[in-house]
Order: sequence, then C-alpha cells, then structure tokens
Amino acid sequence: MIHKLDSPGNKKVAESTVRRLTVYLHYLESLPEAEAVSSDELAVLVGTTPAQVRKDLSFFGSFGKRGLGYPATELVEQLCTILGLDRTWKVCIIGAGKLGLALANYPGFAGRGFQVSGVYDTDPNKIGGPWDALTIRDVANLKADSGARPYDIGVIAVPASSGQQVADILVDAGIKAIMNFAPVQITAPNDVVVRMVNMVLEFEALSFALTQRSK
Amino acid sequence: MIHKLDSPGNKKVAESTVRRLTVYLHYLESLPEAEAVSSDELAVLVGTTPAQVRKDLSFFGSFGKRGLGYPATELVEQLCTILGLDRTWKVCIIGAGKLGLALANYPGFAGRGFQVSGVYDTDPNKIGGPWDALTIRDVANLKADSGARPYDIGVIAVPASSGQQVADILVDAGIKAIMNFAPVQITAPNDVVVRMVNMVLEFEALSFALTQRSK
Repeated sequence: MIHKLDSPGNKKVAESTVRRLTVYLHYLESLPEAEAVSSDELAVLVGTTPAQVRKDLSFFGSFGKRGLGYPATELVEQLCTILGLDRTWKVCIIGAGKLGLALANYPGFAGRGFQVSGVYDTDPNKIGGPWDALTIRDVANLKADSGARPYDIGVIAVPASSGQQVADILVDAGIKAIMNFAPVQITAPNDVVVRMVNMVLEFEALSFALTQRSK
Repeated sequence: MIHKLDSPGNKKVAESTVRRLTVYLHYLESLPEAEAVSSDELAVLVGTTPAQVRKDLSFFGSFGKRGLGYPATELVEQLCTILGLDRTWKVCIIGAGKLGLALANYPGFAGRGFQVSGVYDTDPNKIGGPWDALTIRDVANLKADSGARPYDIGVIAVPASSGQQVADILVDAGIKAIMNFAPVQITAPNDVVVRMVNMVLEFEALSFALTQRSK
C-alpha cells in the first residue's frame, strides 16, 4: 500500500538517484503482470544495495509494507508522478534530419508523453517540406511559435558546429529544458536544464577502451 | 607539427578525458577546411580551460606549436589513432528490432569503422528473416559464430527484462565490449567494458528536472 507522496521540496536529488528511479520504472513496466517486487530485486537491477533502494523510494514518500515488497502497479504510477511522466511534454526538434525522425519514432518516446509538436531547420530546401506528420518550419519562427504555444523541451539535432548557436535560439525562445544530440558541450543559463546524449560518442569511448587494452 | 604519439601505457585515462577527446574530434571534423585551432577554441567547446586541453593532448604525445595552435587535419588523424578509430570494429546486435536498425543506419556509425556484421534474436518468427543486408540468426549460434569470426563489440537491444541474460551470452561468447541499450544496469566480469546509453532515460531525467522546478 502506498501511503502518500511527499514532495521533496527543496531537497536536492542526485543525478544518480534519478537514473535509478528511471531504471526501476522500466523494469517494473517490463514485468509480465502486476506483482509485488522486493527492494532486493530492484537493487540487483541497478547494481546497488536494498537499503539504497528503500532510501531512494522513501525520499518521495512511504512505499510498500515491510516484508511484502512494493506493489508493482502502484509503484509504476508513483514513479511516473515523481518523474513527471503523467503529463505531456511538448517537444520541438531543431534540425530536420534522420536523427530527429528516429527519435520521434523511437519506441516508448511518444508513449511516454514526449510529443514532438514542432520541427525546425535553417535550410531553405527543407523549410516547408513534410516531416512525419509535421511541416518543417524556419528556425527564425521558433520564438514567435513558442510564445503562442510554448515548448517544454528543445532538441538540438544539428552538427557540432551549430550546436551552441541553436542552444542560444532555444534559450531566447524561453525553452527551459534542452536535449543536446550534437557532439559538443553547450552552455546555457542556470535556469535551463541541459542533457547531452550521443550514441557515436559512447561507441568511440568503447573503441578507446578496447584500444588501450590491446596495448 | 605533431612530433610523436606516446602510448599512455599503464596510465589510467579518466572517462571525462575520453569524452573530451571525442568532442574535440567531432568538432575538428566539422570544420569546413583544414586550419589551425587553438587550445582556447577547444576549451570553449567542452567547457574547460585551455590548460586542460593542452594537458589532455600532451598526455598522448606532443602536439602543436606554441602560439600557432594545433593543425586540425593532423590532430584529427592522431585523435582517431588514440581512440582506435583508424580500424574496423566488428559489431553484433542482439535484438533485431527498430532500435538496432536505427543504429546501423545512424549517421557516422558505419563511417566511423563500426561494422554491424551480425544480428541475433530469440524469436522464431524473426530468425532467418532479412535485416538490412544481413540475415537474422538464432542467438544460440552466437558463441560458435564468434569463435569463427570474433565480434569486437556486442550491442544489447532487447527489453530490460532480458538485458542481463543477453549480457551473459555475450560474455560467454568471449566479447570484451558491450553497449547496453536496455534500460537496466547489467553486470559483467572486470575484463569486459560496458557502457549504457538510452535516449528515453535521458528524456525522463529532463522531465524530472522540469517537474521539480515547477513545484
């Protein structure tokens, strides 16, 4: 039984905690049917201790019953609330290439409440053309568009050399969360959350590790 | 002028250093033509100091000339050597779904020397079917296949619930580098390098940050 959900208020939540919460959620959702899970089971999943799992979850309220584990269905619901996945986030993608398309069609992206509702480019040959169910718009329109119907998250899907420029445009349009796919570190004001993800960089790091090892 | 490339030998290279090296490389490659770049320019790119850039690069040998910067073309070449991107890595993907296909067609993946040369699944309806230019094989064949023509990197592209099981199969097949796309923490012996990347988890972390902020 889940008692109540405390708001963490001003308590700072570590990035590693957030990562574990998302992993718990995906695991619980992958279970074939509603059942109870133990903190031991969740601990193995993220490579931590059962005590850490209980700490992670108690941070947001009181979950589960001693000895009975956590009821999976309710825990999923609560994790979605904690993570803000019980609502829709409006996403715009800057850079109308293959990467953005892959993202929009990525399993579990739209289903998670991430709704791609705008796509922008600077290339006159692309602007006005179709992209999934949307029409590619000129990035010069972003600020005006965002004023009328604000975007929650902006995705940078352009080459490294234009990454920072696009970040500045997103910030100027009042967007407070940026997902950066460009292989470049971008800077933004403190009130803007920025995350970076790039599959190729990750593979390159694997390549490096293999190379060092064979020396 | 690049003098020589020292091997870092047993010196341990921090993950953050590797990340910066990959970012330098992508930036240098995105430059329109061969030119010299300064450590100041590279520092801005990764959000560090010029001194750190010089340290990163001198770790692997002596690059550049004081006051003249680093010659971009030669630096690209050297970074590729350091990162092991001057050769081909044979990649197998376990899980013949959309994610693996997106990866195989990801811009800059094959071009970087990552060659998807095998794809495996457990689903009898998929095994034997076409996948890009390959035929989907039964994962039960992985060990034998890898004995004949070893894979360098194994990619886990299955749901969370089968992630660890697939990791064990890859390890058993003698594969020493694993890229995990399943939203679950996997464990492997110390001589196996494991990296995890999952776009949805990253977006969920953004969602969490936005949610906390609006409280």
